[in-house]
This record gives sequence, structure tokens and C-alpha cells, in this order.
Amino acid sequence: MSSPARNPLIRDREVAFLLYEVLDIERLCALDGFRDQGRELYDAVLQSARRLARDQLYPAYAEMDREPPVLRAGAVTVHPRMHALYPRLIELGLHTAARPEEVGGQGLPHTLTTLATAYLMAANASANGYVTLTAGAAHLIESFGSPALRETFMAPMYEGRWTGTMALTEPQAGSSLADVQSTATPTDGDHYLIRGSKIFISGGDHDLSENIVHLLLARIDGAPAGTRGISLFAVPKQRPSGAGLVPNDVHAAGLVHKIGWCGLPSMVMSYGEADDCHGWLVGEPHRGLSHMFQMMNEARIHVGMNAVATASVAYHESLAYAQTRLQGRPMGQKDPTQPPVPIIAHTDVRRMLLRQKAIVEGGLSLLARTALAMDLAAHASDADEREREGRLLDVLTPIAKSFPAERGFEANALAVQIYGGYGYSSEYPVEAWLRDQKLNSIHEGTTGIQGLDLLGRRTMAGGGAGMRALAGAILATVERARAAGVDGAWVTALGAAVDDAGRLTAELGQRGLSGDAAGMLRNSGDYLDLMGTLCVGWQWLEHAAAVAEAGQADDDFYQGKLAAAQYWFATEMPRVALLAARCRAGDDAFERVQPDWL
Amino acid sequence: MSSPARNPLIRDREVAFLLYEVLDIERLCALDGFRDQGRELYDAVLQSARRLARDQLYPAYAEMDREPPVLRAGAVTVHPRMHALYPRLIELGLHTAARPEEVGGQGLPHTLTTLATAYLMAANASANGYVTLTAGAAHLIESFGSPALRETFMAPMYEGRWTGTMALTEPQAGSSLADVQSTATPTDGDHYLIRGSKIFISGGDHDLSENIVHLLLARIDGAPAGTRGISLFAVPKQRPSGAGLVPNDVHAAGLVHKIGWCGLPSMVMSYGEADDCHGWLVGEPHRGLSHMFQMMNEARIHVGMNAVATASVAYHESLAYAQTRLQGRPMGQKDPTQPPVPIIAHTDVRRMLLRQKAIVEGGLSLLARTALAMDLAAHASDADEREREGRLLDVLTPIAKSFPAERGFEANALAVQIYGGYGYSSEYPVEAWLRDQKLNSIHEGTTGIQGLDLLGRRTMAGGGAGMRALAGAILATVERARAAGVDGAWVTALGAAVDDAGRLTAELGQRGLSGDAAGMLRNSGDYLDLMGTLCVGWQWLEHAAAVAEAGQADDDFYQGKLAAAQYWFATEMPRVALLAARCRAGDDAFERVQPDWL
Repeated sequence: MSSPARNPLIRDREVAFLLYEVLDIERLCALDGFRDQGRELYDAVLQSARRLARDQLYPAYAEMDREPPVLRAGAVTVHPRMHALYPRLIELGLHTAARPEEVGGQGLPHTLTTLATAYLMAANASANGYVTLTAGAAHLIESFGSPALRETFMAPMYEGRWTGTMALTEPQAGSSLADVQSTATPTDGDHYLIRGSKIFISGGDHDLSENIVHLLLARIDGAPAGTRGISLFAVPKQRPSGAGLVPNDVHAAGLVHKIGWCGLPSMVMSYGEADDCHGWLVGEPHRGLSHMFQMMNEARIHVGMNAVATASVAYHESLAYAQTRLQGRPMGQKDPTQPPVPIIAHTDVRRMLLRQKAIVEGGLSLLARTALAMDLAAHASDADEREREGRLLDVLTPIAKSFPAERGFEANALAVQIYGGYGYSSEYPVEAWLRDQKLNSIHEGTTGIQGLDLLGRRTMAGGGAGMRALAGAILATVERARAAGVDGAWVTALGAAVDDAGRLTAELGQRGLSGDAAGMLRNSGDYLDLMGTLCVGWQWLEHAAAVAEAGQADDDFYQGKLAAAQYWFATEMPRVALLAARCRAGDDAFERVQPDWL
Repeated sequence: MSSPARNPLIRDREVAFLLYEVLDIERLCALDGFRDQGRELYDAVLQSARRLARDQLYPAYAEMDREPPVLRAGAVTVHPRMHALYPRLIELGLHTAARPEEVGGQGLPHTLTTLATAYLMAANASANGYVTLTAGAAHLIESFGSPALRETFMAPMYEGRWTGTMALTEPQAGSSLADVQSTATPTDGDHYLIRGSKIFISGGDHDLSENIVHLLLARIDGAPAGTRGISLFAVPKQRPSGAGLVPNDVHAAGLVHKIGWCGLPSMVMSYGEADDCHGWLVGEPHRGLSHMFQMMNEARIHVGMNAVATASVAYHESLAYAQTRLQGRPMGQKDPTQPPVPIIAHTDVRRMLLRQKAIVEGGLSLLARTALAMDLAAHASDADEREREGRLLDVLTPIAKSFPAERGFEANALAVQIYGGYGYSSEYPVEAWLRDQKLNSIHEGTTGIQGLDLLGRRTMAGGGAGMRALAGAILATVERARAAGVDGAWVTALGAAVDDAGRLTAELGQRGLSGDAAGMLRNSGDYLDLMGTLCVGWQWLEHAAAVAEAGQADDDFYQGKLAAAQYWFATEMPRVALLAARCRAGDDAFERVQPDWL
């Protein structure tokens, strides 16, 4: 494992470039909600996050990867190092930094906190996971819970004394939440009696906090079948009783042996085996899934950022390796008595590095823009802008989740490839991040589900307003780049691609409206790939515009930006037309293939 | 882990289809070398291989994956189950089946033995690895060794009493064989004294056989620098002395902790620490690398088949899972009281399965055709055909190695994806094959090296004769398909793609001849991808032709073939034009990017 000083996880200049040159986050400070904030504050927040990430989280990563939590006698013990890290993460306070002051937060922009959190994720995704999950669960109670629930559950969760989980998936139902079978029986008191079991519950049990609150989906007795009969409950491991806490019939029934994210236990949980599991309704009955979407959407963005971060740490590690590992000679240099060169001198190694860079930095930028949409949807002074940014956020969420998960897996594989045989060994760090990355295409909605969601719902929402919001944002970048004097071919290419994506979306929508939903959605995976490629092209044009505006062409950092932009426009953007053609053709091979033919 | 009875590893009908309907292997029996052979013999060979694979190798896989070999006190102990399997593999005799009778073989076609071996690889790649490596090492001695060396070393290796390795890579040199530093000092006897260290030596030490013979590259004292000063030696762990064996100063210095292929130790070896390591020259001095290419070429084909086999076993496992795992409802079925359906009912799951099938069966077919080229290059009655098939074999080798390694990794990831969260757990088998697969893009020449080799040497060889041989073989299939009445769009598409590939190859060759070798080779990775996509399209058209000739359109097996062919032509073949455009454009982003920009 490299020394933590060497791997930056994410480069500080990259984040500064995004915040202050690409997104101009300081303009947020003119808005209600962010007044009295400024770069000094933001940089201090970033600095605290970096320090914790580099000095404490990253050095613990390899050990936590090798020694996962254990379940013994119904209780999970996590890695000893996690006991030291957890209080530091809570002290850092990034999990509440974007919440308003009245619930203990700082009211900072998501754009900032998302990027600051990325350092924690790159250093040690599992360690950060406990805290991010807790914040998401507490935010559900903040949004939908009664004042009593907020006081009882939300407050200690935001304080970090208690942690939280999202308890959706059941063993028999998997992704199909319509089939949730956990039940909630009303009682004379303010609580329900919960019965059921859940699987893949991250942080479902551990020994880090006084209590664990499961935000759990269940059906109130007599509720309708399907997703419209699901309600949301807060189900603590220990329930308040008098001045203290008593066991709440919540049990760690098993531990999933994950191949990555080894520091964060994924649990099979059992609720109400003794008919004594109390749960408190959060929000309205039967609206649980709708409420839960707040946490799911947040979680999808976190997954996307984890994917970017996991690709980023591996990119930097493989870059350092390529700069120091001596092997072979440059093409054309046939004299074997000349000394070998660092492998970065080989074109194909630079190709693998530049591809990683384009994916990592393009993905980071996409996540930052998504977070900015969260901020502007809530705080922009103009109602139309809030509406547009809300639509944009909605459309970007599955893209920001899936692009980094899918292309990040490719990037992590390239990092292994650069290490060659050493990369295939657990003595070097890159294989662990490849294992970590694979989860991101699966949890919080598989890539297949994200594609259906994007094309079937989000771009079509509001009569195509979702797609229009995205196209508008991209065209604003096209204008910015044109004004800044960016390479005209890139400006034209992005403009043409967004036009084509708009037409394609309309055509597919029309196909659906005319009754051929299967034909509309058949290539939703290709559509998602197309939109990811387009949106990352958008980011690269935005970066090129910022570089052109800065006007320091010989700066290494800027040169790298332009090289990656060039790579993306030369290599990836032509895929947009290919993918659009696939979506239009809607070839029926996998539609009509029968199970017995496979 | 599924019961071995359920997972076929590779379907028997698939292999019969390839041998008897696609390739018509029985026509080989008209050639000298294969007379008196026939389908009955071939089917018996396949049946023995299947039985061993399914009944013994596969059931041992998971345990061997979990408990890798250990190195203690300088000696490696392999898994106990391997001790039971090794004698069975030797008895089966597939490792010598294609060798002539005079060295203990059966003179069977490689086409047959390669497909039979694929079952062993799918069942347990590591277990088969000991035997395949031994055969490759023995074949080197058979080809280049003196009669004395053949008697001393080759004979016990083919008999399985001794095993063999290929000992090329050194820690400091990696893929750069020009930098091999191991030395060989002449002595008064018939041997040299060997000194040096090697890394990533598969099967470099173990407790399965009486002796281990390392086929090792080293420099004779005073030899020129670079690849032209490398010689090949047989370096046994124990050397013959009188009637017995004595230690030969060969030491297991370390064990690489691989993330897959866990049943086969990858060793750091040290030779001649006490200046008492005897090595015997194999072939001519300074021609060692040229000799070793025989084993490397064979090993590349084995890697390709291992990649196909590893994708195949995962494909069948995920197919069985998709047919039985109930979850969700078909699109348009909104009634949540209806029972859930097997996930194979979901279009995107079928897409992932059909994609795996297209990669696996297309890859298997490509490897079978490559093996046929080995047979025809050696045994065709017509000298021109032998020449053409030799060229074809040369061109196909890097493609047959890399396509399955790269696309197979994607296929294995799809198998994990179909399992969802369960796929991410080591309680289910699919993640292990994903780990196994990653090695195949690295060992025996990385994908980057294969691309350079294909474009820089093999398609250009003989003034473009390599490419012409490939084009000729593909155009023969175009004719066969046209005559059989296959979908005209596919026939036209493959014809156009091979024409374009030919033109592209000529253009790139011209670029090289005019002095721009860097421009010629810049997109050699894309060129390799293009050629793999084309060659697998070739296989799918060949399958479609065989199906059309059979004339039983309602047979499930044939329907599946046509669906996969349709998928490949609709989804993958359009990438040929995209990749050709990339190669022609030769964008210089990763050529000109500087280390400090990354």
C-alpha cells in the first residue's frame, strides 16, 4: 500500500477548479440560505475533510478490507480501527453540514459537502458509509416525521450517538418493492408491531453506537397490495423506555459475505420474532415508498460519488505506479542497452491513464453539477430556475449513479491492468477497489433499473420537461464554450449530440404513447449509456470553457484538462450516434428470445 | 454452489454443433495424420473429458478457490483435493492427445482436444493449469531439444510424473523480455550454471509430482543484449544424478497472493543461490525467445479458451438462476396480487443473458476455428492451404486470446449483475469466476501487447498475407451463408466489415511504411477490438449458415443461435465502423499527453 501522503485520493486543485472555475459556487452566496458564506469557509470545510481522509481513513482501509466485521451470538463486531474513526467522522460533521441550522446543521451547499465527502469515500467508502446512511435515515424523519419522532430519533442520529439504516429489501422480493411482506400491526399505543425480515441492510448491526434506527418499509395490516400499500417506519434496535433503552426484538440474523466494502457489514435482519418489535410510522400511511424515495435518491447520488471516488483513488495509485515502474523502451528505441523507461512512456499505458482520468474527473464533475442542482432547486431566487433545477436533478440522478458505477468499474479494471501481474495480487491495493466498485452497479437500484427509470419516467416527466431541463443546461454550456473560444468542433459536437438526444427522447416517448411501451424501453440500457456519455461530454466542454476563460494554456493542469476533453470528444462522443441508432432500431433479439433458446 | 449436475459448464450440443455442423471436423479424417479416426472416437474423448470435469473437477472448485496453496519452509503444499485430481487429469491424457504417437500421444486433432479441454477449464481452470503448462513445456523440448533431453525431461513430463513451467518473467523486467537478466554460465559438462530469479511462475512449486522442469529464459555469458541474446534452458527442481534425483538449487522464494486462479500457485522462484543450479540448453543458443514463442502462442490460445470457459460456466450458472429466481412482474402487468415471475421474464435480464451467450459461444467458436487452423496448417493436403491456415493461425492467436479475456470479463460481470446483491457475495459462485477472469487480460501478454502484436506484426506479415488469409476465411463463410440462404443483411454486413477491415489494415500499414509507426499503432487496442468483433461476427454468420443448412427452424437450440446472431449483427457489428474510424483518425490525445498533465 502506498503511503497516504502520496495518493491524494482526489486532487485539491481538481476540487477548487470545479467549485470556483467551473461551477462558480460563490454565486450561491448571493442567495438566501447561503449568505454570509464564502470561499474561506468552504476551503476550511474541504481542508478538514481532506485531513481526516488522508491521515486517518485511508491508512485504515487495507486492514478493514482484510478483516471484515464478524457476527457472533447475534451481535456484530466491527474492525477496531472503525471505533477510532467513527467519532472523528461525527466530529467532522459533513453528514449534517448541508442540513439547516435548526436541526443541528450548518446550511452549507450540497455542492460543497458532496465534494468534501468524496474525499472520505475515496479514502474508505465503508467507514464513511455508516455516517452517510445515518444522515439519510435521519433526513427522512426530518422530512416526514412528527415532532416527537424528530426529537426521539432524528436528533440522536444527527448527533451520531445513534446510527441509521435503510431497510427496504427482503430476501424473496429483491428489487421488487411491490412484494414487500413485512407487516405492521396497529396497537393501542403510538407504535405498531413490526414483523418481517430484510436483507442487504448496510450497517444493520454493529458496535459503534448506542442504538441503530432502521427506516423500514412494511405493510399496515389490511393495506392494499403492491407499492401503494407500503408504509415507512422507524424501528430502533433498542426502544426508549422510561429514561433508558430496552431491546426491541430486532435481530441480526446473518451477515452477507460481500466481496468488497468489507468494512461495512451487510446484514440479514429479523424483526419481531417475539412479537415485540415496536415501529413508529414516519409520514403518512401507505405513502412509505414515496417518502423513501427521498432517501433513495440521495443514496443514488452517494453511490455515484462512491463510484467516482473508488475510481479516483485507483487512478491516482496507478498513475503513481506508471510514473515509477521501469519497464521496456519507447517505440522505435531498439537499443537494449539503453535503460528501461517508466511505463507511462508507453502510449497504451497513457491511453489507460487518460481514459481513467476522463471517467474520474468527468464523473466527479457530473456529481458536483448534480449537487448544484440540489442547491439551486431549493434556493435559487427565481421560481422557474428552482423548477428547472429540480427537473434537472431528477433526470441527472440515475445518470450520476450509473455512469460512474459502470465506467468506474472499467476504470478500476484499467488500474489493475496497468499494474499487470502485480495488480492481480492482493499485495497491491488496486484489486480491492475493483471489488469495491462492483457493488455500485447493484445497490440502490441496478443499472437496468436506472435505465428504465430514466427513460420511462424521468426524462419524460412533465411532458418532456425533464429532458428539456437537461438540454437547457447543456446548451448553456455550449454557449459558454462558444463565447470562451473553445475548439469549435467540440462545441458543435456537443450541440449536435444534445439535439439528437432530445429528438430520440421525443421519438421514444411517442413510441410509448402509441402503445408500444416495450419498444420504447427495450434499449433503455443503451439510452442510459448514451445519456451518461453525453453528460460527461457536457462536463468536459464545461471544463474546456473554464480553461479557455482562464487563459493560461501552458499550465499542466489545464493542459491535462484539454487532453482529456480531446480524448472524450474523439473517442467517446461518437458513441452517442451509435447508441441512438440502437435505441431507434429497437432490435428485438433479446425481447423475443425464449428461456429455452438460451 | 449449484450441484454439478445442473451446470453443464459447456453444453454438449454446442460442442457437437461446432465440430460436426459448423466445422465438419470429420473431413479431417480424410487427411494423413487423422485417418482411422472418426466421430465415435471423438465423442468418446469428449465424454471422458466431460465426466471428469463435471464429476470431479467442478465439485472441487469452490474449496480450491477458498483455500489456496501455502508456502512453508520453502515448499508449496497444494489443496488436498488437487492430489486426487492430478492423477485423473493425467489418466485422461488430453494434454498429450494431440501429440504424435511416437511421443506417447494419440495424434488427435487440436480442434477436438481444445474443445474437450475447455470442459476442464470451465470446471476448474487452476486444476487443469498444471497439466496444460506441463504439456506446453514438454512440447518445447519435443520441438527443440536433443534426443537426450527428450528422453530425460520430455518423456516423464508427458507421462505426468514430472510437471513443467514457463519461466520467462523477471521482477524487474515484467513484459519486457529484452531485459531478462538471468544468466547461464557454460561448464565443462553438458549443462550450464543458471543464476537468476523469476516471478509469476504458475506451478513453480507444488507437491504433486516427483519433479518440476522450468523452461527458463537466460543469457549465456557474453551474449548480446536484448532479445537476441536470450537462450532457452530446461532447469529441473531436482536433477538426475546416477539412478536418482538430487536437489538442483531451485528455490520457491515467494508465493504471489493472486485474487483468482487460487488453486494454482504463482511463484517467485530463485535459481542458483548456491551456484549449483544446472540448466540444459534447449535448441540453439540465443534463439530462446524464438523457440519460446511456440509455447507462448500455445499458451495464448489456452488463455483464450480459459477465458471462454470461465465466462461459460458463469453464463450457465446465471441462466439457471434467472430461470428460477422469482422477482417482480412483466412490464405492463400492474396487478401486484399476481405472482412474481422468474427474472428471465424481464427484458433487461434476457439482454444480459443473450449478451453472455453471444460472447461465450462466439468465443468458443473462434477458439475452435483457431484450433482447426493448427490442424490444417500441419496436415492439410494442399501446400497453399497449409500456408494460408498457418497465416490464419498466426493472425487469430492474439484475437482468440484477447476477445474472450476482455469480453469475457464483461460477461462474467453480467453474471454477477444478474444475481444482484447475491452475486456480490462469496456465498454464491459467480464472483469467483469474475476474479478468475481478470487474469486473462494480463498473463501471456497483456491486451495492449496483443494489439501491438496483431497490428504491428501479424496482419502485416508476408506483405499483408496475414490479413488476406483472415479475409479469405471470412469470405468463405460469407459465401457459405449466402448459399444457405441466411438473412441477407447479415451476409452483406459481414462482407462489408471484412472489406473495411482489409482497407483499414492496408492504410495503417502504409502509414507505418511511410515512417509514422506511432500513428499506425496508436489505436492498436481499438484495432484488436475491431478484429475481435469482426471475427466473432464471422463465427455467428457461420453458425447461422449451419442452422440454415440444417433446416429445422423450430428447434430451440437453432432458434437460440439465430437470436444470438441477430443480437451480434444488430448490436456489435456496427461498432466495427466506429472502431475503424478511431483507428483512421488516430487522435493524438493520449500520444501527446504528458505525465505531468495526468
